[in-house]
Amino acid sequence: MASTFVVTGCAGFIGSNLVDRLLGDGHAVIGVDNFSTGQRRFLEGALANRNFRLIEMDILDLDLLKTAFQGADAVFHLAANADVRFGTEHPRKDLEQNTIATYNVLEAMRANGIRKIAFSSTGSVYGEAPVIPTPEDGPFPIQTSLYGASKAAGEGLISAYCEGFGFQACIFRFVSILGERYTHGHVFDFYEKLNKDPTRLPVLGNGKQRKSYLYVQDCIDAILLAMEKAEAKVNIFNLGVDGYCEVNDSIGWICETLGLSPNLEYSGGDRGWIGDNPFIFLDTKRIQSLGWKPKYSIRDGVLRTVEYLRTNEWVFNART
Amino acid sequence: MASTFVVTGCAGFIGSNLVDRLLGDGHAVIGVDNFSTGQRRFLEGALANRNFRLIEMDILDLDLLKTAFQGADAVFHLAANADVRFGTEHPRKDLEQNTIATYNVLEAMRANGIRKIAFSSTGSVYGEAPVIPTPEDGPFPIQTSLYGASKAAGEGLISAYCEGFGFQACIFRFVSILGERYTHGHVFDFYEKLNKDPTRLPVLGNGKQRKSYLYVQDCIDAILLAMEKAEAKVNIFNLGVDGYCEVNDSIGWICETLGLSPNLEYSGGDRGWIGDNPFIFLDTKRIQSLGWKPKYSIRDGVLRTVEYLRTNEWVFNART
Repeated sequence: MASTFVVTGCAGFIGSNLVDRLLGDGHAVIGVDNFSTGQRRFLEGALANRNFRLIEMDILDLDLLKTAFQGADAVFHLAANADVRFGTEHPRKDLEQNTIATYNVLEAMRANGIRKIAFSSTGSVYGEAPVIPTPEDGPFPIQTSLYGASKAAGEGLISAYCEGFGFQACIFRFVSILGERYTHGHVFDFYEKLNKDPTRLPVLGNGKQRKSYLYVQDCIDAILLAMEKAEAKVNIFNLGVDGYCEVNDSIGWICETLGLSPNLEYSGGDRGWIGDNPFIFLDTKRIQSLGWKPKYSIRDGVLRTVEYLRTNEWVFNART
Repeated sequence: MASTFVVTGCAGFIGSNLVDRLLGDGHAVIGVDNFSTGQRRFLEGALANRNFRLIEMDILDLDLLKTAFQGADAVFHLAANADVRFGTEHPRKDLEQNTIATYNVLEAMRANGIRKIAFSSTGSVYGEAPVIPTPEDGPFPIQTSLYGASKAAGEGLISAYCEGFGFQACIFRFVSILGERYTHGHVFDFYEKLNKDPTRLPVLGNGKQRKSYLYVQDCIDAILLAMEKAEAKVNIFNLGVDGYCEVNDSIGWICETLGLSPNLEYSGGDRGWIGDNPFIFLDTKRIQSLGWKPKYSIRDGVLRTVEYLRTNEWVFNART
């Protein structure tokens, strides 16, 4: 049955891919974005669809948000400051764009009688997890980044609204996501650096950081499946592939695809920056028990991302 | 060695008792309070001490807070909205007074080069804990109250500042605190109701909710000991007695002390209100390993509280 969904952060990497999928499935979509990092070009297809309505606004404006949400059946709340690395340069940004923004989304839902929400959280909420692969109910974490802290705070608010106001939520703790419209992260950075100077590649950390990645369409499959099938009040799912790679592996795949052999210049020890987590690997048995599994490997994801960047070099100039 | 400490919420129940203790130990105290729930009478002793400076302000005013913190060595951040029960009536209050306020405290510290903080969190951050007695590193909780969510968010921010800005923190997850200057909670409510009508006592829930309580001076002993001895970057301690009572036990002690036999009128099933946790009992081995143990039982705490209320009935009229 066709529904009307709000997608916040609709012009972002994951948001715009989700919008296209929802529209393709015959649903109506109200897209909300302030274009602080979102790209209008990501919405070219959506804007040609009469089931899509774009509302350009900042979700920190609660009154406007209440109006924007009118008539929606559920909300996919993806808008966020997704920058983990530079959190300490502007601590207020994570608080406002991730925590307070999530509060606004919940209040706008409450004002409109909307009770179902999907939330893009992050594996960063586990801090440096003592249990790996990390399950959703692993030990009470200690936050190590302002980004993780702000997303954990968003999760807590959503859960409290489920208990207090009868909401139902699917909360997704992502590993890093790769694929078309990717505009942020290590593949982006490496590609950009190699584009400037193919002979050398500065690497933050020793390259041995172990990380997990997921291809964006696999991620969207999981989100939609969970929203359809999950029945508890608060449903929390790790999303990732069943494994990890080293940063060095990823560098190898990128260089191989580009036909480059740069000199690798490591710096910073086992962590690339303050709060960098040297090992991220999430236990995804819970989402797999609903019948989902990723169709693409980490290598597939990296290669598709490089291919996307190669044919869309405009994204390097589009950053604000 | 005498230090200068900031105490936010200095006119509150725990805050004012802490101020008196710190001044008694020869320290200087900068007390911050907006008197939204704090009581000027709780500071009578402190205001007569030349080592005490009161700054009446709202900690949501970050610029003023930065000035207030000048010259301090460490901060005891106790200011909060402590009302768990009515969270759903004003969801913004917990966000502002607990989460954003904590962010402001951290920023004011950073602006002044202060790096040590004690934070009054709560056992409510565990939601309905699946492990009881609940240890500090029990399963990743799902929040069930806006209060718990806002305090968990405060903890996350503090931990991220420890990692990102070299802060050191002691985070205390309290059970309910009892004792002199108590102005809020079940003993207060029961006393007030019995004062109005000694023949009947309406009880939220079935009276079988199991809760743990701690006497305020024991609580302060633990806070000061931890601030002295804890050495990790982020130190998290449950604070409570080694046991629990039923709400019915507490009612019995109160009625016995007052010489009353009211008709008990239960309502609401096994939870007194939305988000009420039917069983709170924290594992306190970690703080005990530093050499602390409570000197007072739950019964002692209840009796001392009743005695305090009996000789300070003005507090029932002082609420805002």
